[in-house]
Amino acid sequence: MRIRPVCSLAVLLLTGIAAPNGKYTTFVEKIGDRGLNQLGAYDLLRELTTKIGGRLSGSPQAAKAVEWGEKTMKRLGFDNVHLVPCMVPHWVRGSVEKCSAEDSDGTIQLACCALGGSVGTPAAGVTAPVIEVQSVEEALKLGDKAKGKIIFFNRPFDAALVNTFAQYGKAGDQRFVGPATAAKVGAVAALVRSLTGDPDNVPHTGVTENSSIPCAALSVVAANALSDALKAHPELTVNLKLSCETLPDVPSASVVGELTGTEKPNEVIVMGGHLDSWDKGQGAHDDGAGVTQSLEALHLLKELGFRPKRTIRVVLFMNEENGGRGAEAYAAYAKTAKEKHIAAIESDSGGFAPRSFSCSLKDAGRLNKWLPTLSAFEAEKITGGGGGGADVDPLQAVGAVLFGLEPESQRYFDYHHSDKDTLDKVNPRELELGSLSMATLAWLISEEGI
Amino acid sequence: MRIRPVCSLAVLLLTGIAAPNGKYTTFVEKIGDRGLNQLGAYDLLRELTTKIGGRLSGSPQAAKAVEWGEKTMKRLGFDNVHLVPCMVPHWVRGSVEKCSAEDSDGTIQLACCALGGSVGTPAAGVTAPVIEVQSVEEALKLGDKAKGKIIFFNRPFDAALVNTFAQYGKAGDQRFVGPATAAKVGAVAALVRSLTGDPDNVPHTGVTENSSIPCAALSVVAANALSDALKAHPELTVNLKLSCETLPDVPSASVVGELTGTEKPNEVIVMGGHLDSWDKGQGAHDDGAGVTQSLEALHLLKELGFRPKRTIRVVLFMNEENGGRGAEAYAAYAKTAKEKHIAAIESDSGGFAPRSFSCSLKDAGRLNKWLPTLSAFEAEKITGGGGGGADVDPLQAVGAVLFGLEPESQRYFDYHHSDKDTLDKVNPRELELGSLSMATLAWLISEEGI
Repeated sequence: MRIRPVCSLAVLLLTGIAAPNGKYTTFVEKIGDRGLNQLGAYDLLRELTTKIGGRLSGSPQAAKAVEWGEKTMKRLGFDNVHLVPCMVPHWVRGSVEKCSAEDSDGTIQLACCALGGSVGTPAAGVTAPVIEVQSVEEALKLGDKAKGKIIFFNRPFDAALVNTFAQYGKAGDQRFVGPATAAKVGAVAALVRSLTGDPDNVPHTGVTENSSIPCAALSVVAANALSDALKAHPELTVNLKLSCETLPDVPSASVVGELTGTEKPNEVIVMGGHLDSWDKGQGAHDDGAGVTQSLEALHLLKELGFRPKRTIRVVLFMNEENGGRGAEAYAAYAKTAKEKHIAAIESDSGGFAPRSFSCSLKDAGRLNKWLPTLSAFEAEKITGGGGGGADVDPLQAVGAVLFGLEPESQRYFDYHHSDKDTLDKVNPRELELGSLSMATLAWLISEEGI
Repeated sequence: MRIRPVCSLAVLLLTGIAAPNGKYTTFVEKIGDRGLNQLGAYDLLRELTTKIGGRLSGSPQAAKAVEWGEKTMKRLGFDNVHLVPCMVPHWVRGSVEKCSAEDSDGTIQLACCALGGSVGTPAAGVTAPVIEVQSVEEALKLGDKAKGKIIFFNRPFDAALVNTFAQYGKAGDQRFVGPATAAKVGAVAALVRSLTGDPDNVPHTGVTENSSIPCAALSVVAANALSDALKAHPELTVNLKLSCETLPDVPSASVVGELTGTEKPNEVIVMGGHLDSWDKGQGAHDDGAGVTQSLEALHLLKELGFRPKRTIRVVLFMNEENGGRGAEAYAAYAKTAKEKHIAAIESDSGGFAPRSFSCSLKDAGRLNKWLPTLSAFEAEKITGGGGGGADVDPLQAVGAVLFGLEPESQRYFDYHHSDKDTLDKVNPRELELGSLSMATLAWLISEEGI
């Protein structure tokens, strides 16, 4: 590709939709100029991912992340920086995660990792024949046949679904309730094909609900290998060794800071992501992105002297991944607070280029008046009838309108909950555009109400 | 991020815009299912980039690419596969590209590569003092001061522009006409800051126009280092050694194949990208993407039994990067052909997730009736008043409406024209979605005319 005509900032910012509402032209130009030149969200993400890394609830890294969040908010000059405490689960992976299949042809090593919440195995592991199923329903129907076996959930992502979050949603029950279902029918362990469309050899972890048996994710390569081996040797046995365990709950906290509103300080707009992550990788896209985008958004307003009419508050939620205790504690606070939560914006879908915002309003079309301004940073739609994300959704009960930043989805589950979710997978400009989109939406709500 | 509600294929495909025109539901579902499960564009791209690699016009690799294009079209069962010959420039980089700055503190090595079309230097290189400028205009104003010097064009990408093609357009004159301008005012060589926003140490090549002096791109790291060194030591000298040269033009060709229309075979819709690339990297995004998306789009129609009413033709244009001779030859053919070119769709902006199509119609709004169908694969807008791309734009003269696939732009110039433009930077699903968007647009035009 050689050359395109040069267009003016205004034309290009708006990618053809319309001129911004004149009232917001200065706002958009100033935060765009500062944000895209400084790329502050990426600097924060570099700190969080490289100085702390993966930060599973209850871990020393999660405690460090809370400290970092509080210190960062103070350094950025936010108002009323404080913690909202909560108790969190303390599951630890341990050092042993090993899975192998043995048949008359020999032994196949299968790349695996324990699912969050799994119990461990005896030191020698659990050894049993395997039944492969394509669904939770199929596992339930096994009845007595499942007794003493390892149930292997192997339904892949449905590649024909364009949005990968839909693929995740469609395959996800295998991880969420598959192991508990396997336990119910008498299985001794469960294996789940990683919830990803990327056909590589890296396992993807994630929470599983109420399982009393050991359970692990297999990489896609391992899941395919096991499935092939079962076709040739239905009698093969798998040995699974996990040293994970659940320790007593520990105290932790979400981190809160704000720019207090100048006219209606008691009307609050929350912006946030979750501070915890899985212990695999660095939690860069999930959800270092949402954390640092929220911090950067408020920082830009502060730094450029934009004082919001209503209070804009950043909440870095603790324990989204395996409990939601931070969201619960914040929602409990919001219920009794004297302030009114009018809106909550979450970023928990990765730090890719923005495309749209979901919105809990059924008549979200009435917000399309904001699109000429909002679309300056590539979020070009507001889609009604959805939620905002696991952390802010409970705030609907206190009257908040929910929003979720929806970036381009194609690459997210390639990295999600795995060793691959690292800083180098994040493009600094894409991350910043999400931050600028959130800042703009928060500003519009602050100026106009909702 | 934990979980989202599961939505139906139809809802998700359309990301909220509207239900597809019922007439096209089957079409969209069938090509989506086949395309996203097979990911055929990526398989073709793997062949092109790993078996052939970079394929600069006139090189043996470009000749191989022509063979590959023809063979592939025949294998995929296209009609009327043939070549449209053209003579192409034959510039060769040579093995020496070296740049260093020398001042009283010592020598700094500066990562560089020759610009396409540059003349070489004597074996000992060109050594001269350096004048840094921020623009072509500034170079012109140097007058006699430029004589015997090396002019260093160092205006960076304007990060505040959201769309990176606008950044490229705004900085691009430095590479396109900077060296020729430097020659005009008596300089002995020219250096140009790489046209990229990525602050790393990889130089980005590209064509320069009519320069009679040696000229090279510096990596951003090198450009910054030279600029800093000049501040401390304005008297420093740079030595530039290049062994590039221009050989006589050689015969080459664009590759053409089609599905002949069943009702109006003489009305032609062109789909294409360019087959040549720079010799740096593998030409994966630029423009292996456009080539393989076009091939895959037509292949999907063929394979699934969709017979177009009008002829849909793939043209793999030769020599977009440094001459446009393939586009010229094809346009000359189109002028005298008995068929009518009604539309031409180009993909030459990378294989990233689609966002929109540019369109040459001023009243492109009348095509918005197609958006409910088109947006199934993430191209959610048609923006009027633009071109389609360097290869198809000449077809406007014979009455074709032009379209250009516009994918997400943030990462493109990180790789563009450099060693980094390799297969691993392309996401197979993002690439395929572009192909599906092109197939859908071509199908709509074939069914309804324009």
